[in-house]
Amino acid sequence: MATRTDVRPAVPMLGVVSERSTLLPGRESRPNRRGKLTALLLVFQGLFLGLFVEFVRYGPPAGSPAGSGPTIDHYYPMFQDVHVMIFVGFGFLMTFLKLYGYGSVGFNMLVAAFVLQWATLMRGFLYMEDNTINLDIKSMLSADFAAAAVLISYGAVLGKTTPVQLVVMAFLEIPFLVVNEWIGTVQFQALDIGGSMFVHVFGAYFGLTVARMLYRPEASDSTKEGANYNSDLFSMIGSVFLWMYWPSFNSALAVGDGRYRAVINTYLSLSACAVVTFAMSSAFDKDGRVNMVHVQNATLAGGVAVGTTADMMIQPWGALLIGIIAGTLSTVGFTVVQPFLARLKFHDTCGVNNLHGMPGLLAGVAGVVASLLKLCELGDRSAAVQAEFQMAALFVTIGIALLGGTITGIILQLPVWGKLQSEELFDDRANWEMPGDEDDCEPQPTPSIITDAE
Amino acid sequence: MATRTDVRPAVPMLGVVSERSTLLPGRESRPNRRGKLTALLLVFQGLFLGLFVEFVRYGPPAGSPAGSGPTIDHYYPMFQDVHVMIFVGFGFLMTFLKLYGYGSVGFNMLVAAFVLQWATLMRGFLYMEDNTINLDIKSMLSADFAAAAVLISYGAVLGKTTPVQLVVMAFLEIPFLVVNEWIGTVQFQALDIGGSMFVHVFGAYFGLTVARMLYRPEASDSTKEGANYNSDLFSMIGSVFLWMYWPSFNSALAVGDGRYRAVINTYLSLSACAVVTFAMSSAFDKDGRVNMVHVQNATLAGGVAVGTTADMMIQPWGALLIGIIAGTLSTVGFTVVQPFLARLKFHDTCGVNNLHGMPGLLAGVAGVVASLLKLCELGDRSAAVQAEFQMAALFVTIGIALLGGTITGIILQLPVWGKLQSEELFDDRANWEMPGDEDDCEPQPTPSIITDAE
Amino acid sequence: MATRTDVRPAVPMLGVVSERSTLLPGRESRPNRRGKLTALLLVFQGLFLGLFVEFVRYGPPAGSPAGSGPTIDHYYPMFQDVHVMIFVGFGFLMTFLKLYGYGSVGFNMLVAAFVLQWATLMRGFLYMEDNTINLDIKSMLSADFAAAAVLISYGAVLGKTTPVQLVVMAFLEIPFLVVNEWIGTVQFQALDIGGSMFVHVFGAYFGLTVARMLYRPEASDSTKEGANYNSDLFSMIGSVFLWMYWPSFNSALAVGDGRYRAVINTYLSLSACAVVTFAMSSAFDKDGRVNMVHVQNATLAGGVAVGTTADMMIQPWGALLIGIIAGTLSTVGFTVVQPFLARLKFHDTCGVNNLHGMPGLLAGVAGVVASLLKLCELGDRSAAVQAEFQMAALFVTIGIALLGGTITGIILQLPVWGKLQSEELFDDRANWEMPGDEDDCEPQPTPSIITDAE
Repeated sequence: MATRTDVRPAVPMLGVVSERSTLLPGRESRPNRRGKLTALLLVFQGLFLGLFVEFVRYGPPAGSPAGSGPTIDHYYPMFQDVHVMIFVGFGFLMTFLKLYGYGSVGFNMLVAAFVLQWATLMRGFLYMEDNTINLDIKSMLSADFAAAAVLISYGAVLGKTTPVQLVVMAFLEIPFLVVNEWIGTVQFQALDIGGSMFVHVFGAYFGLTVARMLYRPEASDSTKEGANYNSDLFSMIGSVFLWMYWPSFNSALAVGDGRYRAVINTYLSLSACAVVTFAMSSAFDKDGRVNMVHVQNATLAGGVAVGTTADMMIQPWGALLIGIIAGTLSTVGFTVVQPFLARLKFHDTCGVNNLHGMPGLLAGVAGVVASLLKLCELGDRSAAVQAEFQMAALFVTIGIALLGGTITGIILQLPVWGKLQSEELFDDRANWEMPGDEDDCEPQPTPSIITDAE
Repeated sequence: MATRTDVRPAVPMLGVVSERSTLLPGRESRPNRRGKLTALLLVFQGLFLGLFVEFVRYGPPAGSPAGSGPTIDHYYPMFQDVHVMIFVGFGFLMTFLKLYGYGSVGFNMLVAAFVLQWATLMRGFLYMEDNTINLDIKSMLSADFAAAAVLISYGAVLGKTTPVQLVVMAFLEIPFLVVNEWIGTVQFQALDIGGSMFVHVFGAYFGLTVARMLYRPEASDSTKEGANYNSDLFSMIGSVFLWMYWPSFNSALAVGDGRYRAVINTYLSLSACAVVTFAMSSAFDKDGRVNMVHVQNATLAGGVAVGTTADMMIQPWGALLIGIIAGTLSTVGFTVVQPFLARLKFHDTCGVNNLHGMPGLLAGVAGVVASLLKLCELGDRSAAVQAEFQMAALFVTIGIALLGGTITGIILQLPVWGKLQSEELFDDRANWEMPGDEDDCEPQPTPSIITDAE
Repeated sequence: MATRTDVRPAVPMLGVVSERSTLLPGRESRPNRRGKLTALLLVFQGLFLGLFVEFVRYGPPAGSPAGSGPTIDHYYPMFQDVHVMIFVGFGFLMTFLKLYGYGSVGFNMLVAAFVLQWATLMRGFLYMEDNTINLDIKSMLSADFAAAAVLISYGAVLGKTTPVQLVVMAFLEIPFLVVNEWIGTVQFQALDIGGSMFVHVFGAYFGLTVARMLYRPEASDSTKEGANYNSDLFSMIGSVFLWMYWPSFNSALAVGDGRYRAVINTYLSLSACAVVTFAMSSAFDKDGRVNMVHVQNATLAGGVAVGTTADMMIQPWGALLIGIIAGTLSTVGFTVVQPFLARLKFHDTCGVNNLHGMPGLLAGVAGVVASLLKLCELGDRSAAVQAEFQMAALFVTIGIALLGGTITGIILQLPVWGKLQSEELFDDRANWEMPGDEDDCEPQPTPSIITDAE
């Protein structure tokens, strides 16, 4: 027994060592990335500070007791729900990768915190009055929406970029996103209360294009790209929070009774979508079992698909119908479309095309139909004209996403940013100090409690 | 033992295989469940869609700018708290089972999404005006409450049913629940603002009865029915969210200053309950250690026990007293009552009798006492009469729960639904595609990072 | 390799046994703690009940339909955010310890639930009118703030005390905290809307002093004091919820447009802090990798550092600047200051000095500067006088924290409370029944699904 136990802790070490030697290059052969991320982030943060000094002020009412503007009591609760979706929702949803949990929730936080500032500035420049960007709860909400789009793109390249490349991608994506949103909402007066086109479709196809540009065959056959039992449960934390708070996402910026409808419609669409997702997932397994990937992702498609029409008079059954189609579409996407795209070298780590892309297109089409059926505020436009502009906004969004993604992909390939080595794909050890690093060579005294506990 | 154990875990892979061969029937011998769940869910979802087309519309103010009705600003924040309790709270609380985490949080989502629609319809039919069911935030809240009851019942049969049986149970439970609530609130005018009787007592005893009907001796001695270190921590996510948001559950539908009291009383009752739970849990262990099962569950009993009287003038110390009794009652339930019930073939996986059943009965009794003490709105009734109706509502609830559970249990035993094989109890592999299934026979290159990390 | 790997997983079983025998004293040799925690908690809970009966009533408007007072609609959403920070935020942030997850989230709940009642009473005695403590949503918020301070202190001694010592610490800390807050806010009229001085600085240095008094050399070289892959992800749940809801913490009690600014400033400070934390963390690693400890903690320093000035006219760029300094300060704290303090026998398990202590001092200084710049409400005071009182409040807070911590540390060393044995440090098995305890000697049939899943 004594000897046995003496032997014991030695063994994990072998695992580690072999791990280290076979799967990750030794320290000597690994590229030393020190300094690059630090420099990039400090430069950008300094830039943001300077631009804030120059341009950004409190908007009313925060700026003056007398001022009038969007009130906290009205917007803040929904703002916080959206905030949770960005940081917990997207962050944990992506932790399904068994070896990339740190990168998923950690870099999610970095990218989001970066975008909250950068999007505030870029949107501000487009909408500023007399050279001042007025900050209020609505501009904060819009910045969170912009972060959502970038995080969707992150999902497509998850595990395949360095943090440096990620930050550069976020920096480049925002201008395209902001311009596209401006064209769609200001120029075309297209309706998209939940950002299904301007956030989800844009983020998904921007990200897919970047993933295509950065394509590496070895990514497709990495044994590290997968989940384990615990990582799937961590991922469900994100999934469930996205599911619950999605009504806030689709209604936060809606006005009057439209806000009310946005809550009801999203709640109903998601419910139907979840039920249908289980039905379809079970149908695709030869033993009729359910697939956790579908539950984590396809159940959310109903929130995306109803986003454009959420505040319209589509009636409760219209919301259910959209949810039913979305759940089917998204599950089929994971089982049929994603493998097909992979063969075309569109390697989509999180399947954003299935959760955000196709359901977003469905939302866009629903918006066109709803316009034709006069279910929305038309102002002085005819239904047909509104429908045309809805369609135009959808196509322009796809176009700018593809264009922006291509340009970004080209820039991300510049050697200056560096890239992951093949063994570093989907592996936190490339970017994170791992627990136990400091005492690699001592026996680890504790793991058995974990096994013990099992 | 030595050799056995030495051999046993040898190589995860072998483990898997042996696992598969010894603990779960091979694919060939396993019943092919393909199609059944899919058909059932699609039929129900189609039915819901049809009934929504025919009967459900937006209630005011969502339906019309001019309309008046419950406002979003007033109800939505508490509604979202309740929503989180349903999907994160109940979902993760049940993940304590080391091999049933997917089923806990996954099927929790399926059942809840199913019930949100079904309960909206069934309640709607009882309360509809001129053949129209008006949807508003209050009806959405009531649907979430109904989901809570079904999920409590799910807790009693957790790990012992197929998803098909679960959906059938949910479908059958709702009519009984809605009728009971109608008798209690409309006919008896009984007060139960937090649904301690109509949700917790009903859900617990309905579920226990179903569990009794489906009793299988092998369930009691399954080595799979237990927690491990990580599953206990996942379960705490659900427990803590239930604990924090319970004040919203008990006050969301309260009016005027009663709503305020419901928040304060629930907050106080839960605080006292948590403290007492640690005291009692430690008292029951021979080394004075604390039991995680008690912390996850008994700490919540204070929320249930104060539910009926939450909005009454029971005074802060009254809330503390109820919480103290609830924590004691629930801990004793887990240590003494549950093993006893198990011998009577009431196998209660989550111990819902301890968290929802007995504390719910306590809440009902507290309601009777509070009525006699004139601590509530009596209208034109005498205190004695109100007390009688409170008592009647409690007994009717128990009666309908037992009746409904019995009928449901009988129906669930019909061969058409299928059932789990003995080896499939408390085991996700019966219903879920597992990570690694696709590459069962290759060595897994990664576990050592996990061990490494430990 | 074959044989090697064959041998490896065999060990966990033995591991369990050896674990038990070598790392924790056998049941016989272990001190039997039964009764002590139970008695202590029941006595205190009984005391609380008695004092509530005597003194505590519903404040308006909860007490009377006619009454006027803080409304639920205005305060409740932010109150719930703060509530989540206390129970999920602090609770899960501390689960980073691989063997102390139960104690982190479990005792966090116990301490918080205890303090919610005790702080309500102690604050009430200071502010009561005609012998009655009026409970309302604002007093509940203040109780949650007090809980935050005690939980910060808990972070400094995490894993090094028995639950009995913890409860005694909480009981003793509250009077000091309440008196300090009273001196600062009532006597000095010092401004500290986010409690950076009265909660964070106080809690951090009170806890550090207690940790110093209880110092044990063996704690510093325990191999159990560390994270593993899953515990780090659990910790991120707490970290992200603290990060998201911090704007509510800093603005919940602010009034008028100051509340609005508090939300905006905290949101911005945290964003800049997160970006800078990643930059600094990467700079400190020889390979430029990021450290999860910094991401979990230093990203939050921006919320602390802006707490005192959150509702002032510091302008958005001022908030960014504070966040940038805070992120740098906190990361340097973890990498440079903490090891230094450890040599002085200040063993700070969670690094509360880096997250709460130094950023809190920064907040205090920012408050002085903001006063001098007339960025706050000065009433009839001159800027210089206000600045002096801000400074005085900061120093008094440090003084009372050190004094209170010293006294508490002395009392906690009394043999009557008992203490952990060396092998019990940072180890849940000292205080918690572990899953699998009941079937120690049978082979565990299930772990392989976990490994399988990996």
